[in-house]
Amino acid sequence: MARINQNYDKLAAGYLFPEIARRTNAFLGSNQGAEVLRLGIGDTTEPIVPAVLKGLHNGVDSLGVAETYSGYGPSEGVTPLREALAREYGALGLSLSADEFFVSDGAKSDSANIQSIFSQDCVVAVQDPAYPVYVDSNVIYGRTGDATDSGYDGLVYMPCTEENGFFPPLPDGKVDLIYLCSPNNPTGAVATKDQLKSFVDYALEHKAIIFFDSAYSAFITDPELPRSIYEVEGADKCSIEFNSFSKTAGFTGVRLAWTIVPKACEAEDGSAGKLHSLWTRRQNTFFNGASNVVQAGGLAALSSDGKAQTAQQVSFYLENARIINEGLQSLGITTYGGGNAPYVWMKAPGGLTSWGFFDKLLNECHVVGTPGSGFGPAGEGFFRLSAFGHRENVERAVASIKSKLAI
Amino acid sequence: MARINQNYDKLAAGYLFPEIARRTNAFLGSNQGAEVLRLGIGDTTEPIVPAVLKGLHNGVDSLGVAETYSGYGPSEGVTPLREALAREYGALGLSLSADEFFVSDGAKSDSANIQSIFSQDCVVAVQDPAYPVYVDSNVIYGRTGDATDSGYDGLVYMPCTEENGFFPPLPDGKVDLIYLCSPNNPTGAVATKDQLKSFVDYALEHKAIIFFDSAYSAFITDPELPRSIYEVEGADKCSIEFNSFSKTAGFTGVRLAWTIVPKACEAEDGSAGKLHSLWTRRQNTFFNGASNVVQAGGLAALSSDGKAQTAQQVSFYLENARIINEGLQSLGITTYGGGNAPYVWMKAPGGLTSWGFFDKLLNECHVVGTPGSGFGPAGEGFFRLSAFGHRENVERAVASIKSKLAI
Repeated sequence: MARINQNYDKLAAGYLFPEIARRTNAFLGSNQGAEVLRLGIGDTTEPIVPAVLKGLHNGVDSLGVAETYSGYGPSEGVTPLREALAREYGALGLSLSADEFFVSDGAKSDSANIQSIFSQDCVVAVQDPAYPVYVDSNVIYGRTGDATDSGYDGLVYMPCTEENGFFPPLPDGKVDLIYLCSPNNPTGAVATKDQLKSFVDYALEHKAIIFFDSAYSAFITDPELPRSIYEVEGADKCSIEFNSFSKTAGFTGVRLAWTIVPKACEAEDGSAGKLHSLWTRRQNTFFNGASNVVQAGGLAALSSDGKAQTAQQVSFYLENARIINEGLQSLGITTYGGGNAPYVWMKAPGGLTSWGFFDKLLNECHVVGTPGSGFGPAGEGFFRLSAFGHRENVERAVASIKSKLAI
Repeated sequence: MARINQNYDKLAAGYLFPEIARRTNAFLGSNQGAEVLRLGIGDTTEPIVPAVLKGLHNGVDSLGVAETYSGYGPSEGVTPLREALAREYGALGLSLSADEFFVSDGAKSDSANIQSIFSQDCVVAVQDPAYPVYVDSNVIYGRTGDATDSGYDGLVYMPCTEENGFFPPLPDGKVDLIYLCSPNNPTGAVATKDQLKSFVDYALEHKAIIFFDSAYSAFITDPELPRSIYEVEGADKCSIEFNSFSKTAGFTGVRLAWTIVPKACEAEDGSAGKLHSLWTRRQNTFFNGASNVVQAGGLAALSSDGKAQTAQQVSFYLENARIINEGLQSLGITTYGGGNAPYVWMKAPGGLTSWGFFDKLLNECHVVGTPGSGFGPAGEGFFRLSAFGHRENVERAVASIKSKLAI
């Protein structure tokens, strides 16, 4: 008799975004003809830049000719792309070798799968609020108890609040696996080098491993803020880093990302290289590499033309964030994020709950955002607005909020 | 202290193909200038057909224009592709709905991940020999004991032998999850409808679930043989099926596949729809959908031009298989498979072991194949030759075997 993985039944609710879609559709159903302005899901909207399109087309063309046709590639990604990624980090002053880069189909997949190379009894710490995938993947793997009002039993929540500038203090007790995301989704906060150093020092002392999600690093404009955790000395011994082409090259639907597992990164027994070899084995067994067509596009995104063009698109989204911030602040709403991140994190006015404000914003302004409580208990009372959108859409949403939000 | 998933240390050896690469490179190192003819890995070699190339290019072009740009899609795949897949099964006389199709980046990923929605204490049965991913994914998840000379403790091996025509008898005891692959990799054997029916009846009686890998179904030429397990009545209540664009459209590097989880498929508690909803949740959490560019290519492969052109390529590979079979048989070697599958399964002559024959074939004929024992204990003494290759390469390999193999 085939029995199911009961951990799935612990999951508190459907994934956040389906619930947003459900409420939005219900609103549209009872408000025929209404138009909804979406600042909810962090999904790119601008066309892919010419240099990258050309790379993708070249990738397709190469498959139409016997001499350049390619079948199965290395599940870790093609060498030229791994080398190009290593050079990008070299430009930050970091010496990582190409074979420490694992190309994949998404930072979501990797940040969900990384926990599977660790023991089930590891204690996991997450920032609160956090990207739901970190939590859900560990729930499914059986590292938590049941869901309660304050989160899942057995999971260590590290609150990110106004008081601590949305970067958490070190966990009280000993934890084994620590998820950090900077620039942060959802708060838009960016960790300083000193803040990251406190966690690296903790991890080295306790032989914990940090999973560092830097998928939004391209949005950092402040030259003092670290783009990679490896800018902190010793981080290569205790940190695995994720990044992605999704938000810089507009690849949310195209699918391309990379994960760095340094060979120096040490597992419990102190043998350097063990985590690198486990992740290699995991990817070889469960994955067959990102699409060769898409990798050709990624390589083009790292060319000089590709970098110049995608940088313009990042600036475009940051300008959206500035427009959102300015509009909300003109109403006296307290906001965070947006300067070095594509997310604005706002305090729900009038003491509303996150979902309360979701409904208010939808009903009064016809604008969809993301309730902060969907990212964890400490997100309650906050709300995320995404800067991904066409300029006209962002401007109309902000105008609607300014003219119709009753506060 | 971060502890690793100790199950990885149970894995008997590196994945089969890296070991083949190691021995081949060693041969080339000590035989400077020698050329090796590869009939090893089952990897497509012919250029992608024009209709599919056009679909891929269109997919890229649509991303360069704001009106048709797409970001995150449903992790289950775009609706037109799911509908087109459902129509293909409709042509077999099967009524499966589009939302029972889950598009993904590979049948390898899906057949490796499917076990994760089931309880860790399920008993797993595999055909012996079998595609190593079925076994390794369960070892890593903790469903086996240690490796022994006769396989992993706790795993039920169902021997596929000359005597049973390479289709196994039902397992002796009760098992919960059963992997079947037809046309089979590595033996090339195709299950009859009666043979599949015996397993479907078993599964219905014991509430077991069958994982049916039909990635090579396009190679079936005999109209009497089933292309899908759902051709057997009742199979929709107990079977999950995998298939792929890899070998038909030449997508081994492009990455596109589908998995069917019928809503009628019942878990332990008899609630239909539960497995469908678990797989939906699994994919939503750990995966973000196959590349939109690639899905456009898949849709083109299912157009009438696409089907006509890819069918020619399938015939081309089957002709390779015929050439290999004919050459080996002219030496008096016993072979199986090849008629309805892209693999020829041959008996190592002179009572050699699989690896013994690997070395002999490499040293005497400069031909690389795949040792049968790499697919499981019952594969010992057998050898797989792949029909994927340029015609000239296949002909030269067969000529070399015919003229140089000392038997």
